[in-house]
Amino acid sequence: MKKAVVLLSGGLDSATVLAIAKAEGYECHALSFDYGQRHGAELSAAGRVADFLGVEDRKLIRIGLDAIGGSALTDAGIAVPDAPQPGIPVTYVPARNTLFLSFALGWAEVLGATDIFIGVNAVDYSGYPDCRPEYIEAFRKLAKLATKAGVEGADFHIHTPLIYLSKAEIIREGLKLGVDYGMTVSCYSADPEGRACGVCDACRLRAAGFAAAGLADPTRYVGG
Amino acid sequence: MKKAVVLLSGGLDSATVLAIAKAEGYECHALSFDYGQRHGAELSAAGRVADFLGVEDRKLIRIGLDAIGGSALTDAGIAVPDAPQPGIPVTYVPARNTLFLSFALGWAEVLGATDIFIGVNAVDYSGYPDCRPEYIEAFRKLAKLATKAGVEGADFHIHTPLIYLSKAEIIREGLKLGVDYGMTVSCYSADPEGRACGVCDACRLRAAGFAAAGLADPTRYVGG
Repeated sequence: MKKAVVLLSGGLDSATVLAIAKAEGYECHALSFDYGQRHGAELSAAGRVADFLGVEDRKLIRIGLDAIGGSALTDAGIAVPDAPQPGIPVTYVPARNTLFLSFALGWAEVLGATDIFIGVNAVDYSGYPDCRPEYIEAFRKLAKLATKAGVEGADFHIHTPLIYLSKAEIIREGLKLGVDYGMTVSCYSADPEGRACGVCDACRLRAAGFAAAGLADPTRYVGG
Repeated sequence: MKKAVVLLSGGLDSATVLAIAKAEGYECHALSFDYGQRHGAELSAAGRVADFLGVEDRKLIRIGLDAIGGSALTDAGIAVPDAPQPGIPVTYVPARNTLFLSFALGWAEVLGATDIFIGVNAVDYSGYPDCRPEYIEAFRKLAKLATKAGVEGADFHIHTPLIYLSKAEIIREGLKLGVDYGMTVSCYSADPEGRACGVCDACRLRAAGFAAAGLADPTRYVGG
């Protein structure tokens, strides 16, 4: 069976990606990060999703991004906006996906795998630069040059099955594959039990996705 | 004063790079990693070098590469070779420079800097793929696409002042700039006090460099 490293945050998108990778027949190695994010509840969600969908193994890597700061997600002194902002929002975490993909690349090389799955989306997204197809293509080229496996002939495939889907399409796809979205946590300000604020970017995109798909939203909200 | 993030391992090359960045007038922010490397003594060396040459500030980030393994430097079960090996050696650490540069990129963006210094070398080196100019160029392109700063117009510069120098040339340059190589640790199997084994790749390249430069080697060796 072909092995793949799947980046699994515990949110709606990455849970869907894991279900897709499994449906495509990959033996899935799930990779999650404790990067000092304020919504640490997503890590418990990642564990639930991995157990529910089934993975070959799972790693949780701690990286001290809070030591660097510069984002509302890693610096307690920067508030998560409760309304849309123009441009790239303050929830952008400098170099986050590059770090995540770099770890995935290293683990893939050790596993002898050349397939990496990541749930980036360039439709219903927050405008993060490291979610765009041109960014993913640049990382693919880098991976070939960066690694022993690449030098020896391997080509890495960075699978982004959600990149051109709307949030509603992602949700429909996931439900078809048996994802239980009640297990996932998207909210940037989720409380320790994983209940969502309902007003941050991530909550807005998620709720709009369920509404557009005409489906009941299983999200648990704070105070309701 | 222009800010730069300087990757500082505590070895000969990165100490020279820090001296060069300072000589070029940069305010230097030194970045070191505890990645589970067996030669942890290089981290004390990084601290000594940073203090001696002077940096604006310094971060030491712990990243759990030992959880991924796959290298003689991060897996105690894989021995460091004591003689040259054909091909890319087992001391290659999957995705290491990509991770290091990704952290440097994130910190640079938070600092408002676009300059990153790294001591890669493609002449007297161990054949690691992520030390080659084509790799560095791919990372530069990625950095532009990965970041908010890049999208908003910034161009990142990945400075590799050693890339085409021989080890002897690197040592001569560093001595001219006041580097004390007695403070640095290159050995992959250095003991906790930083004494070198004398037989690993890193020791061989270093000793050959001092010999070729016709200079006394200040390295402290185990048992001598």
